[in-house]
Amino acid sequence: MNTNRQWLLAKRPFGEVGKENFTYAETPIPEPGNGEVLVRNLFLSFDPTQRGWMEDRESYLPPVQLGEPMRAGSVGQVTESNHPDFATGDLVQTTGGWQDFVIASPGQGPMGLSKVPDGLSPEMMMSVLGVTGLTAYWGLLDLGDPRAGETVLVSGAAGATGSVAGQIAKIKGCRVVGIAGGQQKCEWLKNELKFDEVIDYKNENVDRRIGETCPNKVDVYFDNVGGNILEAALNHINMKARVVLCGGISAYNATEPVPGPSNLMNLVVMRARMEGFIILDYMDKAGIAVGELLGWVNGGKLKFQIDLQEGFENIPETLNRLFTGKNIGKQLLKIADPS
Amino acid sequence: MNTNRQWLLAKRPFGEVGKENFTYAETPIPEPGNGEVLVRNLFLSFDPTQRGWMEDRESYLPPVQLGEPMRAGSVGQVTESNHPDFATGDLVQTTGGWQDFVIASPGQGPMGLSKVPDGLSPEMMMSVLGVTGLTAYWGLLDLGDPRAGETVLVSGAAGATGSVAGQIAKIKGCRVVGIAGGQQKCEWLKNELKFDEVIDYKNENVDRRIGETCPNKVDVYFDNVGGNILEAALNHINMKARVVLCGGISAYNATEPVPGPSNLMNLVVMRARMEGFIILDYMDKAGIAVGELLGWVNGGKLKFQIDLQEGFENIPETLNRLFTGKNIGKQLLKIADPS
Repeated sequence: MNTNRQWLLAKRPFGEVGKENFTYAETPIPEPGNGEVLVRNLFLSFDPTQRGWMEDRESYLPPVQLGEPMRAGSVGQVTESNHPDFATGDLVQTTGGWQDFVIASPGQGPMGLSKVPDGLSPEMMMSVLGVTGLTAYWGLLDLGDPRAGETVLVSGAAGATGSVAGQIAKIKGCRVVGIAGGQQKCEWLKNELKFDEVIDYKNENVDRRIGETCPNKVDVYFDNVGGNILEAALNHINMKARVVLCGGISAYNATEPVPGPSNLMNLVVMRARMEGFIILDYMDKAGIAVGELLGWVNGGKLKFQIDLQEGFENIPETLNRLFTGKNIGKQLLKIADPS
Repeated sequence: MNTNRQWLLAKRPFGEVGKENFTYAETPIPEPGNGEVLVRNLFLSFDPTQRGWMEDRESYLPPVQLGEPMRAGSVGQVTESNHPDFATGDLVQTTGGWQDFVIASPGQGPMGLSKVPDGLSPEMMMSVLGVTGLTAYWGLLDLGDPRAGETVLVSGAAGATGSVAGQIAKIKGCRVVGIAGGQQKCEWLKNELKFDEVIDYKNENVDRRIGETCPNKVDVYFDNVGGNILEAALNHINMKARVVLCGGISAYNATEPVPGPSNLMNLVVMRARMEGFIILDYMDKAGIAVGELLGWVNGGKLKFQIDLQEGFENIPETLNRLFTGKNIGKQLLKIADPS
């Protein structure tokens, strides 16, 4: 291969994202400068938050510029190194973007550059031990502060973050109720991940079912979706409840402002807290989380699932799987095998 | 006087509250039991939260029942005592309700029963040193956690709680911006209370004016109103901002659910916190607040204003002054003078 295939952001989205928002391009393979390495991307990470990066507005990261490769986390392999800590062949994690090759160095870009520890698979590093696993870990434990015996409600529960958050809550001795769309996801949560109860938001009345499945009310609500489900959850919060706002996927494709919950006063009545979370603030504590998560995985207490797509040409459509609810667990796409 | 005049809750409100929600009654003066005192109410407190007490739904206090005197805080005078700590003639604070006489004892009812300290006026005990002053103090300082140099935005800023919250923020070295309705209130905040900036929500674009008056964004938003003003404030929050949800008066008279802010995801982008506050949780620390507030009042650093109405017959209409924005500062009504 002597060209760098890329998917460039061509048009900012209005509503759903599709192939028309991106342009395929082939450019020369870039040359790493001093202190930099050239990485060949092997796996790309797909995350709902990427939808926000495509918009031209202030957020926790600058918007992807038109004509730039779409931003994405990745695991790749060093093919050329001008940095003493990295050797050709090393598996690394970085912000590779939707392209074959990227120039990377430690401390540069939101993900920096770090080696995949020996013995760990790229899939694991990009899911349960990656950004989504860390989000579940610190979001739940730091902001949610769940205590044994409490009830933890998780939306987007079959997603990469929600499924880990719910299992951590189980490990901590909580009663865990998950909200997900469709029978397949709900059965996975109940039977494989051992959630205490599940709510199928596509086929059930969420508000009523939260009441039924959370007889002692909701002490921690870990929210990945926002919208009506957030409103339903707020109807059932307990005194001093903690609402961890981790995402709001229900509104990411909206073409006009989506009204928020009409019952925010329940936060007052219940002296409850709602707090926004972004994992970038916790990267200095990533090691603590990775160590504990890995222990739980190895001990059989924490399961994870990958939805693995393949093929460079399928990158744009794969992003959309997150919004149509096709994925169970972490959405990845494989571009190439390691050499 | 040998009857107990009362305003009883007759009809739960739908929309605005008016005289038609209450029935005038005259009943025998009750007899205090063992450990109880008979209090003659002198001043009644009017607070937006009373609107919620009239509704038949679960909240932080049980609803007022139909046929019961409307619940209200009061300062009165002991006219008969079967409790060793209280003597006839003592000025006391309690949950007197909309009536001339009430049976009270320490620990009973949301306000319990406590003496008005010597040298303090009933008006002061019911405003800057009362529930609204305590709400401002603990809501701002505990949940808002303002630090010198930060920007504090207060809505309902000319109300009993907001006006004190803003001044405490000034005392703590913050830049303080107040939102209130109408020129008179805004001038009072700016000229008398020395707020740095004011926004007249009745005559100005609140969203744009927050941007103009808070060039370093909003670190603490002390919210008494909810609705569109909450949404506007969320557009301008700073990283790690604290939103103290203290009230939502804009929706108290709504006849159908009022959509919440469409921009809750700003809490995520800014890693900000929104937390509900009710002063009842802080009553064991009331003394700390009263001591410090009194020091500021005596030192000329903290001003307060009373909107004093008179006449038992005017009680129902006086509640409505809070919702039509007629009051500046604390709304009280005097039933009788101390003997």
